[in-house]
Amino acid sequence: MSGNTIGKLFTVTTFGESHGIAIGGVVDGCPPGLELTEEDLQGDLDRRKPGTSKYTTARREDDEVKILSGVFEGKSTGTSIGLLINNKDQRSQDYSKIKDSFRPGHADYTYQQKFGFRDYRGGGRSSARETAVRVAAGGIAKKYLKQQYGIEVRGYISQLGPIKVDKVDHSVTNTNPFFCPDDTKLEALDAYMRDLKKEGNSIGAQVSVSATNVPVGLGEPVFDRLDADIAHAMMGINAVKGVEIGDGFDVVNQKGTEHRDEMSPEGFHTNHAGGILGGISSGQEIIVHMALKPTSSISISGESVDVNGKPADVITKGRHDPCVGIRAVPIAEAMLAIVLMDHLLRHRAQNSLVQSITPVIPAQR
Amino acid sequence: MSGNTIGKLFTVTTFGESHGIAIGGVVDGCPPGLELTEEDLQGDLDRRKPGTSKYTTARREDDEVKILSGVFEGKSTGTSIGLLINNKDQRSQDYSKIKDSFRPGHADYTYQQKFGFRDYRGGGRSSARETAVRVAAGGIAKKYLKQQYGIEVRGYISQLGPIKVDKVDHSVTNTNPFFCPDDTKLEALDAYMRDLKKEGNSIGAQVSVSATNVPVGLGEPVFDRLDADIAHAMMGINAVKGVEIGDGFDVVNQKGTEHRDEMSPEGFHTNHAGGILGGISSGQEIIVHMALKPTSSISISGESVDVNGKPADVITKGRHDPCVGIRAVPIAEAMLAIVLMDHLLRHRAQNSLVQSITPVIPAQR
Amino acid sequence: MSGNTIGKLFTVTTFGESHGIAIGGVVDGCPPGLELTEEDLQGDLDRRKPGTSKYTTARREDDEVKILSGVFEGKSTGTSIGLLINNKDQRSQDYSKIKDSFRPGHADYTYQQKFGFRDYRGGGRSSARETAVRVAAGGIAKKYLKQQYGIEVRGYISQLGPIKVDKVDHSVTNTNPFFCPDDTKLEALDAYMRDLKKEGNSIGAQVSVSATNVPVGLGEPVFDRLDADIAHAMMGINAVKGVEIGDGFDVVNQKGTEHRDEMSPEGFHTNHAGGILGGISSGQEIIVHMALKPTSSISISGESVDVNGKPADVITKGRHDPCVGIRAVPIAEAMLAIVLMDHLLRHRAQNSLVQSITPVIPAQR
Amino acid sequence: MSGNTIGKLFTVTTFGESHGIAIGGVVDGCPPGLELTEEDLQGDLDRRKPGTSKYTTARREDDEVKILSGVFEGKSTGTSIGLLINNKDQRSQDYSKIKDSFRPGHADYTYQQKFGFRDYRGGGRSSARETAVRVAAGGIAKKYLKQQYGIEVRGYISQLGPIKVDKVDHSVTNTNPFFCPDDTKLEALDAYMRDLKKEGNSIGAQVSVSATNVPVGLGEPVFDRLDADIAHAMMGINAVKGVEIGDGFDVVNQKGTEHRDEMSPEGFHTNHAGGILGGISSGQEIIVHMALKPTSSISISGESVDVNGKPADVITKGRHDPCVGIRAVPIAEAMLAIVLMDHLLRHRAQNSLVQSITPVIPAQR
Repeated sequence: MSGNTIGKLFTVTTFGESHGIAIGGVVDGCPPGLELTEEDLQGDLDRRKPGTSKYTTARREDDEVKILSGVFEGKSTGTSIGLLINNKDQRSQDYSKIKDSFRPGHADYTYQQKFGFRDYRGGGRSSARETAVRVAAGGIAKKYLKQQYGIEVRGYISQLGPIKVDKVDHSVTNTNPFFCPDDTKLEALDAYMRDLKKEGNSIGAQVSVSATNVPVGLGEPVFDRLDADIAHAMMGINAVKGVEIGDGFDVVNQKGTEHRDEMSPEGFHTNHAGGILGGISSGQEIIVHMALKPTSSISISGESVDVNGKPADVITKGRHDPCVGIRAVPIAEAMLAIVLMDHLLRHRAQNSLVQSITPVIPAQR
Repeated sequence: MSGNTIGKLFTVTTFGESHGIAIGGVVDGCPPGLELTEEDLQGDLDRRKPGTSKYTTARREDDEVKILSGVFEGKSTGTSIGLLINNKDQRSQDYSKIKDSFRPGHADYTYQQKFGFRDYRGGGRSSARETAVRVAAGGIAKKYLKQQYGIEVRGYISQLGPIKVDKVDHSVTNTNPFFCPDDTKLEALDAYMRDLKKEGNSIGAQVSVSATNVPVGLGEPVFDRLDADIAHAMMGINAVKGVEIGDGFDVVNQKGTEHRDEMSPEGFHTNHAGGILGGISSGQEIIVHMALKPTSSISISGESVDVNGKPADVITKGRHDPCVGIRAVPIAEAMLAIVLMDHLLRHRAQNSLVQSITPVIPAQR
Repeated sequence: MSGNTIGKLFTVTTFGESHGIAIGGVVDGCPPGLELTEEDLQGDLDRRKPGTSKYTTARREDDEVKILSGVFEGKSTGTSIGLLINNKDQRSQDYSKIKDSFRPGHADYTYQQKFGFRDYRGGGRSSARETAVRVAAGGIAKKYLKQQYGIEVRGYISQLGPIKVDKVDHSVTNTNPFFCPDDTKLEALDAYMRDLKKEGNSIGAQVSVSATNVPVGLGEPVFDRLDADIAHAMMGINAVKGVEIGDGFDVVNQKGTEHRDEMSPEGFHTNHAGGILGGISSGQEIIVHMALKPTSSISISGESVDVNGKPADVITKGRHDPCVGIRAVPIAEAMLAIVLMDHLLRHRAQNSLVQSITPVIPAQR
Repeated sequence: MSGNTIGKLFTVTTFGESHGIAIGGVVDGCPPGLELTEEDLQGDLDRRKPGTSKYTTARREDDEVKILSGVFEGKSTGTSIGLLINNKDQRSQDYSKIKDSFRPGHADYTYQQKFGFRDYRGGGRSSARETAVRVAAGGIAKKYLKQQYGIEVRGYISQLGPIKVDKVDHSVTNTNPFFCPDDTKLEALDAYMRDLKKEGNSIGAQVSVSATNVPVGLGEPVFDRLDADIAHAMMGINAVKGVEIGDGFDVVNQKGTEHRDEMSPEGFHTNHAGGILGGISSGQEIIVHMALKPTSSISISGESVDVNGKPADVITKGRHDPCVGIRAVPIAEAMLAIVLMDHLLRHRAQNSLVQSITPVIPAQR
C-alpha cells in the first residue's frame, strides 16, 4: 500500500539506500511448494551487477542475496519471504560537494524539497542500487511462471542512442555486455560506447521485454488493466520516461484496418496489440518497450544551485554507467514477471478455473 | 483495491456497462468543505459527450451526472461521494452478430475467455462509456486542485494520424471539435476526418495533458512514483498504447548533457524531465503524452472467429468515433487530476508542512 | 483503501447519508456466472428494515435495492456490481436542535471536530441507514458461499439486557421480531421491551453469528488472520463495542487443558477456538459474538454542549429503536459473509487447489 | 495488502520464522526528521523478551534489533525503514514428534491444511517470535506520537486467571514481571504462577492498553473506524480471542441513560465509550481490553492426530510461557501505536488542519 510496495496479491516491499548497511525486501503471497534456493535468484542479480562489463560501472556491489524466511527444506512455505543483500562498499567517499548542492537531472532537489532532508550518499534511496532487490524478487516470480505455466520473460536492448537492433535473437542477448539481441550491431555498440566514455558523456536507450505463453485472461477491466499495471511497474524503474505496449506510439498514425489484429481459427494474424486487448492478456506474446534517459551522473560540469539557492557547478565524479539502459534489462524482466505473477493470482482468485479453459483459438498461427 | 478502483487516499471506484441501467461510482477521500455542485462536473462531461461534434459518435448519451451523497449544503462533507449517470439509450439493438463472434481489436475475445461469459451489448464494461464517471470524478479533483493550489490541468490533441500540432495555445483547444490547440491545423483536420469517414476507416491519435503550479514534492520514491502512477492511470484509458513523461521516447537518442535540466537561482533552464525527477514533482510543468489506437469499430469487414472458433466476418455497424483519441482529452485530464489529488493527500499525510515550504528555486525562469 | 471500502478481493464500497437522495455501493470481485437477482438481496434487506416489528423504529425506509450493473441475463459478469437504494423518507424534519448541539453518545461531536462540518440530518453518514447497503452486498456473498460451498451464515440475538438465551434453534430465530433463537425467552423479551419503551430508555444487546461448512484454510498468517478481519468487520458495525471469537473473554480464566480443542480421527472434540486456529479456519463452525451498546437516541434528556461549547440539554425526538442490537443481526451476517468471501478468494489465489484438499479429520465428531 | 502487512499509510510488513536465520520487517510511511536510534526500539524489545522473568520462557532470543535503512545521521529520512533481528537460537531440536502430528490448540493443523506443508520448527511463522518485529516497529510509532502529540500508549495485565487488578497505577506496571499495575496483587500472582508451573498447565489473561492525549478526529466513518482498526490489530496478536473498546461487553446490560457519556463545557463526564464515538476518537482516553487464551504448549499430554489422521498423543516439551498474556503487553502497546500513527497520517491527509483545531470541550473534566 505504501510507496515501497508493489502488487496486490504477490507483493514486493523493498528498503535500503545506496550506501547503507544493507538493502532488502519482503516478498509476500508466493504460492507454497515452489522449490527455491538463493542460486535461483543469483543469476539475474549477476546479470544486473555493475562491473559485469566494461560499459557498466566498475563499483563493486557484489550482490549476494540471502533468503531469510519463507523457504523451508528447499520449498516456499506460503509465508513472507525475507530477502537481504549486504552492501559491501559502504566507505563514504567525500560527499561534501553533493551534500550541499543538487546534481542536475538527479532526484537530489526533489527529495530535499519533499522530505526537507536527504541521504545524499550515492543518491540514497533514489539510487538504482535498490533495483537489486526487485531483481531478486522477480526471480521468484520468474521461476514460478516458468515452472507452472511455461511463461518466458525476456528482455533486451532494442536501441542505444542512434543504434537500433534489426533482429531479436534471444540466444544472442546474454552473450554480450549490451544485452543486445542482434549480433550485427555489437561492433557498432562497442565503438559508440568507447567514444562516449572518452567524451565523458552518457546516452539514453530503449529496453524491450516480452513474455510468451501467458494464459488468456490476465488483467482486470477498467483501472487495473494488465497494461496499466505494466506501465506502472516499468515507469517505476529509475530513468524510464516512456512505456509502450505492442505498437505503442506508432498507433498514432495507423488506421483501424492496419491496427486491428484479425483472427482466424488458426490464431491471431498479427500482434499490433502486444498481447493485450481491453486490458486483458490475449494469449499472444506480451511486448513492452521503454525509454531510459541518459545517466545524469557525467563528468562534464553542469550548472546548478546549492541548498541555499546559490549558483553551483556540479561534476559527478566516480564510476558511473554511461548508459543506465543496459543494466535495466534484468530489472525490466523482473518487473514484468512480478506484474504477471500478481495478475495470475488475482485472476485465479476470481476465476478459479483458469488452468482448465482451452482458448478458442491458438495464440499465433 | 479492486480492479475498478484507482487511488490510495483519493479513490475513485466505478461501475456500469454501456447499455445497462446506469453507470456511476464512488469518490472517497475528498477533503471536507469544498464547494461542489453538479454543474461543476457537467462541463467536462459535456466536453467528453459523444455527438458534440460531427466527428465523434452521434449516439445520444446525455451524460447528466447526479451527486447522491457526500455533499451537504453545497459543500463536501468529507464522506464518500456517490455519482450516478443514467443511461438514456438502452434500447438493445440487434446484437446477434457480436453476441457470438469477436470483433477484431476489441476486448470481446479476452472478456469471454477471462469470465467465460460477457455482456456483449455495446462492449459492456469495456466500452468507453465507463469513462464518463471518471470525468465526473476528475472534476472534483480538478476543482480542489485549482482552488487550493492554483493547479491547472489541460489536455489537447497533439497529433491525429499524420497531422501534428506545431504550437500549443490553450485558448484555442476548446473552441474546436478536435481539442486542437493549434488553429493552423483545423482545416487539415477537418479535411482528413471527412475523407476518413467516407472511407469507413478510423485513425489513431496522440493526446497530451499538462499540469501547472504543481507543488514540489508530490510522488513517492520507488514504486509509487508520480510518473509511475500517471502511467498507470493513462494506460488504463481505453485504447491507450503508450505513455510518455516529458521528452519520452526522444530520450533514447539524447546525451546526458542534452537531457539533464540545469538549474540556476532563477529556476530550471529546460524541462526535458516533464516536471518529475526521481518520481517526485519538481515544481515545473508536468507534461504527459499518450498514444491512442484507431477505433476498432469500423464499417470495413474484418476476419475473425465466432465463440466456437469458426471463421466469421465482422463489420461493426452503428455510429462510432472514427478517432477515439479526440474524446480522450477530457478523460486524460480527469485521470491526471485524480493522480495529482491522490499524491497531494499522500504527501500531506507524511510531510504535513507541504504548504509552507518555499521552493529553493522558482519552477521556471 | 479508503475508509468506505472493505475487503481486498471481494470489496464493498458504500456511499450515502440517512437523509440524502439515495444510498448505494459497489461490489467488486464477484466471481462471474453467479445467478443473481434483486430478489436474492431483498430478503435480508426486509429483515433489517425498521418497522418490521413494533420494537424497531417505525420510520419508513422501504429499502428496495436496484442492481445497476455487473449482472447480465441473470448472471454476474465478473465486473463491478452497482447497488442503489433510494431514500424514500427525505423530508427534512426540524433539525434545528441537533444542528447546533451534540447528542450525547452520538458521533455528532467527533464528526464535527474531524471534518469541521457535518450533515446533521438524522446522523448523516454515521446513521445505521448505511448498513442497508452492506446487507445487500452481503447477500451476494451469502448466495455464492451457500451455492458453491454449502456455507451457512446465521445470526441471532444471544442476550438483550439481562435476558440471555439458553439454546440456539436457528429455526426459531426468524419467526420472532427479536431474532431470538430460544422460544422460551420470547415472552420475557416482549415484556422487557414494553417496559423499556414506556420508560423512554434503550438497552444493549449481544448478537452472535456463526458459519458452518467453512473450508479449512481460510485466513492469512500474521495480520490478516481470519479472526482479525472478522473483528475489523464487526467492530465496524454501528454501536459494536466488543467482539469475541469462540470462548472469547471466558478464556481469561481457562487453563490450557480446558481450552485446547483435542482431536481424534473422528474430528475435534470441542470448539473453544470458535473455528479458527492461528488465524486460519479449522473447518469447525465459526462462532462470533459481539456487544452492541444501547441506542443513544432516547427521549430522556441528557446534558451536553452546543457547537460553541455552551451547555445544552438534548432530547432525541422521533422514532428510534430502543435496542439497535436487534436489527444488527442481518448486518452481522452480511459482514461475516463478506469477510469469508474475501478470504475464500484470497486463499484460492495463493493455494489454487483448495477445493480438492480433503481435510485430515472431519470438522466435528 | 498482503497478509503480512498492516496499515494504509504507516505500514508494517514482517517476515521470519521462529527458527529461521532472522526475523525482520519494513516500516514505511514514517514522517521524515524523527530522531531515531536502535536504542529507542530496544527497550520495548527487552520488555517483550522471553526469559525476562521466571514466569516467561527461559529460551534465549536476545532480540537485538538493527535498523538497516531509512535513518540517516540519526533522523528518519521518510523512506522505508528496514529492521532486522537475528535469531540466535536456531539449533534445531528434535522436532520429529511435532513434525508429523498436530499439537492441540496450535496452528499446526490449519497451516498444514492451508499450505499443504509447514515449517514445523517451533511453530514456524505462527510462533509469537514474529511479534518482536511488531514491537520494534511500534517503537517508531510510539516515539513519534509521544514527541509530536504527547500521546502515551500504556499496557498492563488487568486479569490473569481468577486474579483481577483493582487499580491501575502505571508507575507500578513495569516494576514487576507480570506487567501488573496493582501492587496489592503481586503476591497472589506469584503464588498462582508457581502452582501453575508445578501443575504443568497454563492460564489465560486479559491485557489492557490505553492511549492518552489522542487528538479528536482520528478514524474514518464506516469500515475503517478507529475502533475497527484497533480490533483488527489486536485480534491479529497470537492467542487473542476477544477485544473490547471502553465498557465492551458490559454494554449488553446497560441502558441508554447509563451508557451515553454526557458532556458539559468542562468536558465529558464519563468515558463508557472508551474514547471513540462513531468510529472517531473523541479526545478522551482510548481504552482497549483483550482476552488471551492459555498457552497451548503444556507438558500435560493431549489427544490429537498425526498428518495421516491416525491417533497421536502430544506433549509439548521445552520451555514455554505458562501465560502468554504477560508478554503480550508490549505487543498490544505496539499495535495500538501503529494503528494510531496510521490514522493520524490518514486524518492529516484529508483534514490538513488537525493540529490547529481547538476542541470544543476538553477531553475530561
